[in-house]
Amino acid sequence: MPHISLGNDAPGIVSLFAYRPETAKPLCDLAEVLLRGPSSLGRGERELIAAYVSKLNDCNFCTDSHAAFAAAQLPEGMVLVDQVRSDPDAAPVSPKMHALLRIAGAVQRGGKNVREQDVAAARETGATDVEIHDTVLIAAAFCLYNRYVDGLATTLPEDPAGYTQMAELIVNVGYGAASGQPAAQGA
Amino acid sequence: MPHISLGNDAPGIVSLFAYRPETAKPLCDLAEVLLRGPSSLGRGERELIAAYVSKLNDCNFCTDSHAAFAAAQLPEGMVLVDQVRSDPDAAPVSPKMHALLRIAGAVQRGGKNVREQDVAAARETGATDVEIHDTVLIAAAFCLYNRYVDGLATTLPEDPAGYTQMAELIVNVGYGAASGQPAAQGA
Repeated sequence: MPHISLGNDAPGIVSLFAYRPETAKPLCDLAEVLLRGPSSLGRGERELIAAYVSKLNDCNFCTDSHAAFAAAQLPEGMVLVDQVRSDPDAAPVSPKMHALLRIAGAVQRGGKNVREQDVAAARETGATDVEIHDTVLIAAAFCLYNRYVDGLATTLPEDPAGYTQMAELIVNVGYGAASGQPAAQGA
Repeated sequence: MPHISLGNDAPGIVSLFAYRPETAKPLCDLAEVLLRGPSSLGRGERELIAAYVSKLNDCNFCTDSHAAFAAAQLPEGMVLVDQVRSDPDAAPVSPKMHALLRIAGAVQRGGKNVREQDVAAARETGATDVEIHDTVLIAAAFCLYNRYVDGLATTLPEDPAGYTQMAELIVNVGYGAASGQPAAQGA
């Protein structure tokens, strides 16, 4: 049961967006730009980073929802997402994704854990400055979303199929759909 | 030296806002709503929570800047801010602020660390559901900002007086001034 009375039965962050639309708007705008905006990283790759960081933060709602969003936008689907979640170093992703996931993991532990050699290693695999920037910010953003969801003890969907339905909405409409308001930046 | 080439000499998060205006906008909109928007918590009180969480995350730029923003908006000024930063339990703040700072500290460690009794204790001091919600979200948001600032190894202002100048801008204009774009929600 949530720590405060949210006035709705939606699961996870969706219930918080409905409770406080003023903060929902910038939070959804940020997700839209970072995870779906123009980028040389694929949308599936960015959702994979989000799901991975959420797993490290032990946030069930965000892990399972962003795993579904990643799987829906990656040719390898949930098989790859599960491999990254359980053993990222052994998962069959590109050297660049390996390096970016390592940076994301460092950010999750704390900003000062990102070392120069982690950034240099990412650059050697072809990662651009903007890709490194966005990886750091995606990881940092999920340290927010995860704490927000669990800090207020929001509920999980009763039926795990709920994540697949959410994925359809995010993939086809975007994060504006989650806030109930149009997102500032579209697909 | 920052991990990536930011193309400007601004300190801390200001350099990141200039580098990537697309993400600066929602990040500043969020700060504006949470720290300056309509609320039964004072602006100084909210900045105090921000400075406290930034200290826990060991982020020098955010601790010193939000300490300056808090001091500029609290009658007790920097004396109180320093007391909260060094020993929050002993600091002469209201029972409600004590309870909210404890919730913020729990969020900083991880969302699941917020216990029902922490929320009940805050409620006993008169904290409303929205105040509890906003405290959790402010603490979660600074787990983002702090990791963003340090994860990319941004620089500190050469002169600590820079924080006082920033405080003047934030107090008089708001967080839109930091993004170089008008914030979505004003004072």
